[in-house]
Amino acid sequence: MADKKLVEAITSMEEDFAQWYTDVVKKAELIDYTSVKGCMVIRPAGYAIWELIQKQLDDMFKETGVQNAYLPMFIPESLLQKEKDHVEGFAPEVAWVTHGGQQELQERLCVRPTSETLFCDYYKNVVQSYRDLPQVLNQWCSVVRWEKETRPFLRSREFLWQEGHTAHATAEDAEARTLQMLHVYAEFLEKVLAIPVIKGQKTEKERFAGAVATYTVEALMHDGKALQSGTSHNFGDGFAQAFGIQFTDKDNKLKYVHQTSWGVSTRMIGGLIMVHSDNSGLVLPPRVAPVQVAIIPIQQRKEGVLEKAAELKEMLKDFRVKVDDSDKSPGWKFSEQEMRGIPLRIEVGPKDIEAGKCVICRRDTRDKMEVPFGELAGKVKELLEKMQTEMLERARAHRDSHTYVAKDYEEFKQIFGEKAGFVKAMWCGCQDCEDKIKEELSVTSRCMPFEQEQLSDVCVCCGKPAKKMVYWGRAY
Amino acid sequence: MADKKLVEAITSMEEDFAQWYTDVVKKAELIDYTSVKGCMVIRPAGYAIWELIQKQLDDMFKETGVQNAYLPMFIPESLLQKEKDHVEGFAPEVAWVTHGGQQELQERLCVRPTSETLFCDYYKNVVQSYRDLPQVLNQWCSVVRWEKETRPFLRSREFLWQEGHTAHATAEDAEARTLQMLHVYAEFLEKVLAIPVIKGQKTEKERFAGAVATYTVEALMHDGKALQSGTSHNFGDGFAQAFGIQFTDKDNKLKYVHQTSWGVSTRMIGGLIMVHSDNSGLVLPPRVAPVQVAIIPIQQRKEGVLEKAAELKEMLKDFRVKVDDSDKSPGWKFSEQEMRGIPLRIEVGPKDIEAGKCVICRRDTRDKMEVPFGELAGKVKELLEKMQTEMLERARAHRDSHTYVAKDYEEFKQIFGEKAGFVKAMWCGCQDCEDKIKEELSVTSRCMPFEQEQLSDVCVCCGKPAKKMVYWGRAY
Repeated sequence: MADKKLVEAITSMEEDFAQWYTDVVKKAELIDYTSVKGCMVIRPAGYAIWELIQKQLDDMFKETGVQNAYLPMFIPESLLQKEKDHVEGFAPEVAWVTHGGQQELQERLCVRPTSETLFCDYYKNVVQSYRDLPQVLNQWCSVVRWEKETRPFLRSREFLWQEGHTAHATAEDAEARTLQMLHVYAEFLEKVLAIPVIKGQKTEKERFAGAVATYTVEALMHDGKALQSGTSHNFGDGFAQAFGIQFTDKDNKLKYVHQTSWGVSTRMIGGLIMVHSDNSGLVLPPRVAPVQVAIIPIQQRKEGVLEKAAELKEMLKDFRVKVDDSDKSPGWKFSEQEMRGIPLRIEVGPKDIEAGKCVICRRDTRDKMEVPFGELAGKVKELLEKMQTEMLERARAHRDSHTYVAKDYEEFKQIFGEKAGFVKAMWCGCQDCEDKIKEELSVTSRCMPFEQEQLSDVCVCCGKPAKKMVYWGRAY
Repeated sequence: MADKKLVEAITSMEEDFAQWYTDVVKKAELIDYTSVKGCMVIRPAGYAIWELIQKQLDDMFKETGVQNAYLPMFIPESLLQKEKDHVEGFAPEVAWVTHGGQQELQERLCVRPTSETLFCDYYKNVVQSYRDLPQVLNQWCSVVRWEKETRPFLRSREFLWQEGHTAHATAEDAEARTLQMLHVYAEFLEKVLAIPVIKGQKTEKERFAGAVATYTVEALMHDGKALQSGTSHNFGDGFAQAFGIQFTDKDNKLKYVHQTSWGVSTRMIGGLIMVHSDNSGLVLPPRVAPVQVAIIPIQQRKEGVLEKAAELKEMLKDFRVKVDDSDKSPGWKFSEQEMRGIPLRIEVGPKDIEAGKCVICRRDTRDKMEVPFGELAGKVKELLEKMQTEMLERARAHRDSHTYVAKDYEEFKQIFGEKAGFVKAMWCGCQDCEDKIKEELSVTSRCMPFEQEQLSDVCVCCGKPAKKMVYWGRAY
C-alpha cells in the first residue's frame, strides 16, 4: 500500500501536463515552496543536478578562455537608466531596495535582474587600452525578476543562472563570441542534457532589451511547447556609447568596445524534466544524474547480501552509486529510484549471489538484464553511455515528429488548432505579420534558424515575398 | 621606469598597514570598487582564489555528509521576527525591499543577512519523523549587511559565503556537528590557507544572535590584529520552538529538533593577504594560487625560447602554469608575478637552454636555484609542497611570538599599550569585566580556547577567582 501511495500521487502527463510537472518536481524532492511567493527552495536532489550542470558548463566556458568574477547584486536606479532600451525592458519587473538598516537610501537600488549595466560600469574602469581586451567574464549568481505568474524552475522571481559579459576591440570579435557561446550552449544541451535544440536568431520583436542581435537555442517539450533554453546577445557598441567604455587602439585612436552577453539558468532543469521524464517520475540523463546507480539489496537481512551490495558499490567506484539499505521494502525502493530518475537500478539478493550475477534495470526503457558480477563495471559504463545517447535520439525523434510545415495561413491555423509542436513557415520579415500571428494563434516566433529552408516564396501570413523561414511555437 | 611604477604604488606595511592592504588588493587586481558604496567587484584574480577555496572546502564538507541546497534571498519581515534574539541582532543592519515592479509590497522583505529563519521555515515543512533527520544542508551564496564602515573582503555590504544549517534528533548530535564543522574549518585554514588558528568558544557577550554556544577559529594578522575566520553555532532547540519544528521520534513522542549553523566567507581572502603578503604584493599558498607557476621567457624573440617555455609548461601539466609571453619587459613581468603572488617563477632564456636548465625563484623567500630541465617537474612539486608547509610554519611562529601572557591588569594594559597581538589572561566569567576591558583597552575577548592553561587563579581584571583562560585581541 505504501508503494502505491508513492506512485499514485503523480498525475499522468496525458491527463494534465502542468499538474504532472508540478507533481514530479515535488515528489522527486527537487523543489519546496516558501513563504515568499515565486521564490523556491532548491532541495538537495535538485541542487545536485544544478551542480553537475555548473561544473560541466563551467569547464566548457573555461576552455574558451572565460574567467569567472562576481559583481554586486544591487544596481543604483541611475545606473540602470543609462541605456534606454535596457531600462524599458527591465524596470517594470525589478525589486527595489529603499532602506538600508534604519535609514532610507538616498537613491533606491534594484536587485539585479541581469548585470549588463554593472559590467559596463566595471569595464569603463578597467579597459583603457587594446591590451585590456578582450574581457571575457562570467558570473554564476541569482537574479530577481518580479514575475506575476511563477512555476518551479520555469519562471520564478528569483532564479540561479550564469551570465557572461564580454567586451571586444572589434564588431567582428563580438559577433564571433556571441555565436561561439551559442554553440557551446547547443553542444552542452545536446551532449550533457540530451536535449536537441534549434539554433537561430530571434526576430527584432523578440530581441533582448538593448541588443542588436539575439541568438537562441530552442527546445521542444513533451507536450509540444517550446522552451527557450539559452540566449546569446550581441550589443554592438550601444552600451559602450551609453556608458563611455572607450579604449586606445593600436592605431592610437580612441574607440568604443563591442559587447556581448549570454546566459542559461535553472530553467534548463525544467526543460530536462519536460523532455525526458514520464509518469513514474524523473528520468535523468546519466551525465547530470546526481546518483547514477541505485543498488537495492533484496532480502537484505540474509547473510552476505549487504556485504555483496557494498562490494558492488566498490566495483563501481568510477560512477555515482548509492546503496539503499534503508528499512523500506524493495518495492518502495524501486518506486523511489524511479521517482528520482536514477538511471540504473541494480537488484541483488541471495539467489543472485548464489548464481554470481545481479539484475540491472534501465530507468528510461525499463529493460532488465542479468549481468555476471565480473562484467558489472563494464556493463554499467556501456549502459550509461547508451542511455545518454538514446535519450538524445528519442528526444530528437519526438521533436522531429512534432515539427510541421505550413505554407499558407489556413494550414498554419489548422496545425496550431489541432497539434502542438514547432511549425516552420516563411515570413516576410515585417512585424505586423508577427503581431497578427501572435494575437490570432497565441504563438510566437521562436527563431530564424541558422539552417534555412525555402519552403515557399511567400510569407505564410501576408503572402508578400518571404525573407526568412521561421520556427513558430507556443512558449513556456 | 614602467617597472618602477608598478612597484612604487604599494605603500609599505610598516608605514601604513591599512593603506598597504588596500594597495595590494587593488594592484593585485583582486577587487574593484563600484558605484554602490560597500559593494565590490571581485575581479577574476580574486574570484579564482574563491573558487579554489570553495572547491576544497566543499569537498571536505561532502566527506562529512553535507548536501548543498539553495534557499531564497528574501526573508519576509514577519519570518525574520520569529526568533527574538536573532531579529534583535540582525534587523538594524538589513537591506529592505519594499517594491516589486511598480507595486508596493504588502509586507516588506529583507535581503538575507544570514538564513537561519529560512532554513527553519523549510525544515518545518520537510521534517516529520526521526527518519528525516539529520538534515545537513549548506548553501554557497551572497548575503547583505548594511555596514557603515566597509573594507574590501573584511567588511562589505554584500559578501560571498557558505552557510551550513543542520537539524538533529538530539542535543548531543547537534553539539557534535557544531564541533565537527569547527574542526573542518581549522583544518582547512591550516592545511589549505596556511593560516594557523586558535579554536575556542565565544563568551556569552560575543555569541551569535540566537545561539546557545558559538565556537570560533581566530587567526592573527601581520599587524597583530585578530581576525575571526569562521564560526560554528549550536542553537539548541530555541529556533525549533520559535518555528515549531517537531518530529515524531522512535519512541513515538513529538520532539523539537536541535539545530546548528556554521559559516566562512570571502573575509578569509582578507586573512590570506594579511597573514602572508609582503611589500611586493600578494603571497599565496600554492593550494589556493590560481596560477602556481609563471614561466617567464628571457629574450623571448630569440629562436627556441618560446618553444622551450611551452615545452616546460607541458612538462608541468599537473600544476596551474602560465607562460607570460606578452610584449612587456622581463623586469615588469617579475614585478607582476610578485604582485599577483604566483608561488614560483621560472626564468628561461637562450643561455639556460644551452646549459639545459632554468632558474626557479620562490615568491615567499625569494630563494633562487638552477634546475636541470629533466628534474623540473619533481622540483616544482617539492617546492610547492615545501612552500605550503613553510608558510604555515612562518605564520605560526609569527603568531606565537606575538602572543603574550598577562597576569594582572597593569601588565594587561601595558602589553596592549606597547604591543599588538593576542594576550592570554584569566577571566572570572563575568560580563562586567569583559565590558570594562573593551571600554578601557579597546580589545575584545576572541575566545575561550579549547586548550586551557592555568596562568593564575584570579581574573586579570577584577581579581576574583578565575574560571577560564581567554584570548584577547584587537579585532578586524
